[in-house]
Amino acid sequence: MARRLYELVGEDPARRFSPFCWRSRMALAHKGLEAECVPWRFTEAAALAFSGQDKVPVLVDGDRVVSDSWAIAAYLEAAYPERPALFAGRDPAAARLSAAWADAALLPLLGRLIISDILPWLGEGQRDYFRASREARFGMTLEQITADREERVGAFRAALAPMRLVLKGQPFLGGAAPDYADYAVFGNFQWARCVSAFPLLEAEDIVAAWRERMLDLFGGLARDVPHCG
Amino acid sequence: MARRLYELVGEDPARRFSPFCWRSRMALAHKGLEAECVPWRFTEAAALAFSGQDKVPVLVDGDRVVSDSWAIAAYLEAAYPERPALFAGRDPAAARLSAAWADAALLPLLGRLIISDILPWLGEGQRDYFRASREARFGMTLEQITADREERVGAFRAALAPMRLVLKGQPFLGGAAPDYADYAVFGNFQWARCVSAFPLLEAEDIVAAWRERMLDLFGGLARDVPHCG
Repeated sequence: MARRLYELVGEDPARRFSPFCWRSRMALAHKGLEAECVPWRFTEAAALAFSGQDKVPVLVDGDRVVSDSWAIAAYLEAAYPERPALFAGRDPAAARLSAAWADAALLPLLGRLIISDILPWLGEGQRDYFRASREARFGMTLEQITADREERVGAFRAALAPMRLVLKGQPFLGGAAPDYADYAVFGNFQWARCVSAFPLLEAEDIVAAWRERMLDLFGGLARDVPHCG
Repeated sequence: MARRLYELVGEDPARRFSPFCWRSRMALAHKGLEAECVPWRFTEAAALAFSGQDKVPVLVDGDRVVSDSWAIAAYLEAAYPERPALFAGRDPAAARLSAAWADAALLPLLGRLIISDILPWLGEGQRDYFRASREARFGMTLEQITADREERVGAFRAALAPMRLVLKGQPFLGGAAPDYADYAVFGNFQWARCVSAFPLLEAEDIVAAWRERMLDLFGGLARDVPHCG
């Protein structure tokens, strides 16, 4: 197949758990585009050298190579304008804040709740890298980072307040149908779901109902994968 | 004039300081529409009875009456489609998250930094109402709410992280030009600027440069008003 998406996986290549790769996978599905999954693991930087950088997702579409989930979304919108719009026909720049909110307001809080749950899904070769790099970043052990997550989950739930305000009036962040804002936020939840059973949301949370709707999209694309949560 | 916007003012009717009224005022300017300002003060609920509710902004446009800043923006977009787009030609629902972020993630943090500075701008008749209603909401005196603002301002600045991520790549949240996302967030800053001299941003913050650009819009519409900050 001419179209390939390099996606982060654990030891089991079916265990895909990067929030950013999930954004791209959902964006491809939104456009009705297939893309072969190329499993990629931490420490395999050399395998991405062709892209000029060392992070996934990387999309290879014929002779085009695009890295960075935001750039991939903008590329898909520009390259496939006749397919369903990821940004409702407008300049992706005008939708940037939604993805930035997922990145800067949610992801750091979420990471502190689930990061230690990632370790068991990695192969031997990745565990040392993962532990050392993350423990250096946080200045404590993986286990210490998540030790107080029962107390910290409240801050994560509180940070979702803007989303609840939107979902009170419409089923998706995009309106009546999902758009890239939904995929950006959903990627975070799917990251967690694929590696961690820690309950992020209360059952009656309007965000939990939205997450179920997201899992139903595209014939259960995101639901029917190895997961924990 | 057939078009009127009811806006919250202090004792001086030129001191306009509602974040939501500023959103509507900027949205009108974006559309190139004039609207007479009808000064409205806390406790004057009766003057809004015609709108079926008791909060500003209320827009009266000929025989149309629209309350709620979000509804006003959506109305303006639908009623004046030939004028510059507030939502870049797409369904306003898809842009709802940006305004919701301004509401739910920024406004509560900002309010705790400046709320005691509002009091001096109110007339005798509004001060008791304002103090009693806000102190009941927070469970402490106005002065207590802002007493630790030097410590709290860091949390407000941190909450702006998603915006910085966007502004690293483009001058406005809307992209190359401002759209309603900019006005929604700017309304919050303008609220503060009109009543408080408390420094919200560090001078070198990319958000401060954006705020200056917003103050320049429409011939200095928001800059050239009575203000403190």
